[in-house]
Amino acid sequence: MIEWKNFDTTAAYGKLNALKDKVVLKEAMAGEGGAERVARYQIPMSNGLTYNYAAKEVDDEVLVALCELAKEAQLTEKYEALYNGEVINTGEKRLVLHQLTRGQLGDDVFADGVNKRDFYAGEQKKAAVFANKVHAGEITNAAGEKFTTVVQIGIGGSDLGPRAMYIALENWAKKNGCKYMDARFISNVDPDDAAAVLAGIDAAHSLFILVSKSGTTLETLTNESFVKDALQKAGLDPSRHMVAVTSETSPLASSKDYLEAFFMDDYIGGRYSSSSCVGGVVLSLAFGPEVFARFLNGMAAEDELAKEADPMKNAAMLDALIGVFERNIKDYPVTAVLPYSQALSRFPAHLQQLDMESNGKSVNRFGEPVNYVTGPIIFGEPGTNGQHSFYQLLHQGKTIVPLQFVGFKNSQLHEDVVIQGSTSQQKLGANVAAQIMAFACGKDDENPNKSFAGGRPSSIIIGKELTPESLGALLAHFENKVMFQGFVWNINSFDQEGVQLGKVLAKRVLAHETDGALKAYSDLLDI
Amino acid sequence: MIEWKNFDTTAAYGKLNALKDKVVLKEAMAGEGGAERVARYQIPMSNGLTYNYAAKEVDDEVLVALCELAKEAQLTEKYEALYNGEVINTGEKRLVLHQLTRGQLGDDVFADGVNKRDFYAGEQKKAAVFANKVHAGEITNAAGEKFTTVVQIGIGGSDLGPRAMYIALENWAKKNGCKYMDARFISNVDPDDAAAVLAGIDAAHSLFILVSKSGTTLETLTNESFVKDALQKAGLDPSRHMVAVTSETSPLASSKDYLEAFFMDDYIGGRYSSSSCVGGVVLSLAFGPEVFARFLNGMAAEDELAKEADPMKNAAMLDALIGVFERNIKDYPVTAVLPYSQALSRFPAHLQQLDMESNGKSVNRFGEPVNYVTGPIIFGEPGTNGQHSFYQLLHQGKTIVPLQFVGFKNSQLHEDVVIQGSTSQQKLGANVAAQIMAFACGKDDENPNKSFAGGRPSSIIIGKELTPESLGALLAHFENKVMFQGFVWNINSFDQEGVQLGKVLAKRVLAHETDGALKAYSDLLDI
Repeated sequence: MIEWKNFDTTAAYGKLNALKDKVVLKEAMAGEGGAERVARYQIPMSNGLTYNYAAKEVDDEVLVALCELAKEAQLTEKYEALYNGEVINTGEKRLVLHQLTRGQLGDDVFADGVNKRDFYAGEQKKAAVFANKVHAGEITNAAGEKFTTVVQIGIGGSDLGPRAMYIALENWAKKNGCKYMDARFISNVDPDDAAAVLAGIDAAHSLFILVSKSGTTLETLTNESFVKDALQKAGLDPSRHMVAVTSETSPLASSKDYLEAFFMDDYIGGRYSSSSCVGGVVLSLAFGPEVFARFLNGMAAEDELAKEADPMKNAAMLDALIGVFERNIKDYPVTAVLPYSQALSRFPAHLQQLDMESNGKSVNRFGEPVNYVTGPIIFGEPGTNGQHSFYQLLHQGKTIVPLQFVGFKNSQLHEDVVIQGSTSQQKLGANVAAQIMAFACGKDDENPNKSFAGGRPSSIIIGKELTPESLGALLAHFENKVMFQGFVWNINSFDQEGVQLGKVLAKRVLAHETDGALKAYSDLLDI
Repeated sequence: MIEWKNFDTTAAYGKLNALKDKVVLKEAMAGEGGAERVARYQIPMSNGLTYNYAAKEVDDEVLVALCELAKEAQLTEKYEALYNGEVINTGEKRLVLHQLTRGQLGDDVFADGVNKRDFYAGEQKKAAVFANKVHAGEITNAAGEKFTTVVQIGIGGSDLGPRAMYIALENWAKKNGCKYMDARFISNVDPDDAAAVLAGIDAAHSLFILVSKSGTTLETLTNESFVKDALQKAGLDPSRHMVAVTSETSPLASSKDYLEAFFMDDYIGGRYSSSSCVGGVVLSLAFGPEVFARFLNGMAAEDELAKEADPMKNAAMLDALIGVFERNIKDYPVTAVLPYSQALSRFPAHLQQLDMESNGKSVNRFGEPVNYVTGPIIFGEPGTNGQHSFYQLLHQGKTIVPLQFVGFKNSQLHEDVVIQGSTSQQKLGANVAAQIMAFACGKDDENPNKSFAGGRPSSIIIGKELTPESLGALLAHFENKVMFQGFVWNINSFDQEGVQLGKVLAKRVLAHETDGALKAYSDLLDI
């Protein structure tokens, strides 16, 4: 029997608070004891990834308390309930089925009169068939010429995830002979966004994907009109250049304006939709359906590992628990995501949405205010770039920011040079190793300006290489981490009521139905 | 006589603490009182920009205390000392002269035996002459063909600022007939970065700018070798394709490996170097020297306004003071930068470096630990995109994050469509106006899950359009804001000792001179 209770009512909460200052990282990570932690404090993930948490402020005693928390908060049972189709998104009274888009973890889930796994797999198959036809020149523009570019029109979850995944695999695909089409993305309602993308492509050979679950997203519909207008001015028929990704109940679903419509549903939150047709159509067109299928396999493998009840063997769960310890017990407000991989340059922006939109809440799943902090602020840029930027504050600032590193043994393109006895890839790896230790242990110096206090906790996920599978595994890891944290905090990680008020007020501004300060601002902006 | 004293020893510090909860934003911004604040709480900037702080948690009494703080901390006198050539960067015993790269605010400054304004102007002129020759086909590749692409190789300050400025003006320049060359950037030591950039350009018609003040930056020298290797493999002579931006004392300065060398010096910090040749060469090549000169004019105008001693007439100074109030009195750890302009998509990443590297310090300018918090964590993405991502936490999360909006009345490209009675640009403006009010006033709802507490402070800089001048003004505003905050906190905003330890340890890893945990991590990463 699942019991939903607030984090601060658990027995573990008190125990963890008593252990707040148990681990002094600077000491724990020094000498051979440190080496032993690196060897012991890791969990194998799927697809060659390993989660290493040696440089976190935990020890065996803290870990035992975190394991008790996992049990008390029934994390495994709640995950099981989720993938077996319970109404986990209580606010909107919806199932939460994104894991089903890439596997089958438990029972068949029936909703809306269909087997949902079959539904998602069917749409994925439809996208694959469509992409293959486009690549084969069976679906073409009106002149019978092949499409060479695909442009995704979407915002938020319909943009950040697919865009980050595209960037992550673009060079890998080129290298491996499976880059079929260039992809571009239009998201912002700023007209300069659509205009610039349109100026940079050959519209006559471009296919546009309109992505909106509801079919009512202001930015997306506006950009669709912008694009249609441009296509018409270029003498092209928009309905020969557009497909839709939407829900079956949306006004877009049966429109003749699209070559084809691919479906998702209300059980896939936007920020969890990269593995649905929201990511599937654009990535299958860009890299071929096989690559997208491999990406899904990576996600499915990680979803499977997340079922493990013992947090010491479940990387997503332990990562979540340590994050809770840092947020609620250590009171750190921010977490930085720092991939040492240029291909992951927009991965932090996607995780920022995934995490902050899911767990940036102040009420529990029953709508009652909670008395503890919830999701942290997330930001990040790739290393080594960040080292020459904001790392100064991370090392010597007044606020401690826990760090989530990601690193790979090999580069994607396998093109490298040896300078001063090492390759670029070795330099990249050496830097992330060095940073972990610099953050953890610091360095004393007679000159306080050159002193490093240390005590800055970090974890690292290490992989062999960034491939479709390991990328999928990495993404699923974070999706599951965020889910487990939401369970601990007893919040609904699957709604986003906080985005509504701005929409309502913006409509009022456009209708000129404002007064007071809102009218004053609107006037300043010449609306 | 200038006195450098810690913030918590000022009389204003105590006064401000007593005013911590004086302003309840939700009430202050409601009704006609709110409209009056919007009208009153603004300061004209240069080049059509206005700084509006109506939605900050200040009132006339708080503002008086902030003005007292400005006086007590001698902000104007310290700025004057800086631009007149005093050794403000005490840790490294250096002058701080970036303002001189774009104007002449006070006395002539002589150092290294020369008039520094003449030196910077001379280098800028050299870059202009060089760019004009490239555009005219007087400087060409070995085959006598024009260069079409410029690639900046640099990291940190040699990358983020110039890249953000290039992105900000790229479409504007196309629209206005002054886009001469495409620019690309290589920064990360990850070999996939350089390999991908090289795969996307026509190397035979590309000019590379190697940017390193010291001439010793690991990433940059490594990437230079990577590029040279690729050029040689393509049968090209690297010395016909490369220029350097460096200091006169660097090993690169007199090398025959470069077509030309452009100079900066130790008085220009990397993160303040967009207005030096670090930004000047690439931007002059991309958009022509006239556009870069207009950008500098925008910066100079804002520098001039920053001399005003009354914070109520000095946007950069008041912005700085309100930021200090939020950081130290209200205890907010993070600030978000949210430009409602797609062209400013990488502007937040540059400000993140500018602010966090400058003010992420724990010791004062004399090397003594300070007992108060210093620079905040900075992050941001353009709106409206962010609205569909992390704004959920900003609206309904447990941590209050002050917001810095930027918005423009017109788009850059002036291409727009009317949908449902409004243009995209109007929708963009309506959204930022709506967000300010939603954050400030919130909304009560019977369902706590749909309630918004409000009380989230924000300011907005409103401009007519993003041009070279207004972009320059915007950048100088933030540079000066960060400088004033450093003065209040009594820290050295111009060194970055926090980046050193990681460099030292990385070298040790590459030399295989490690033990303990550092060796263990290195082994995991196959170094």
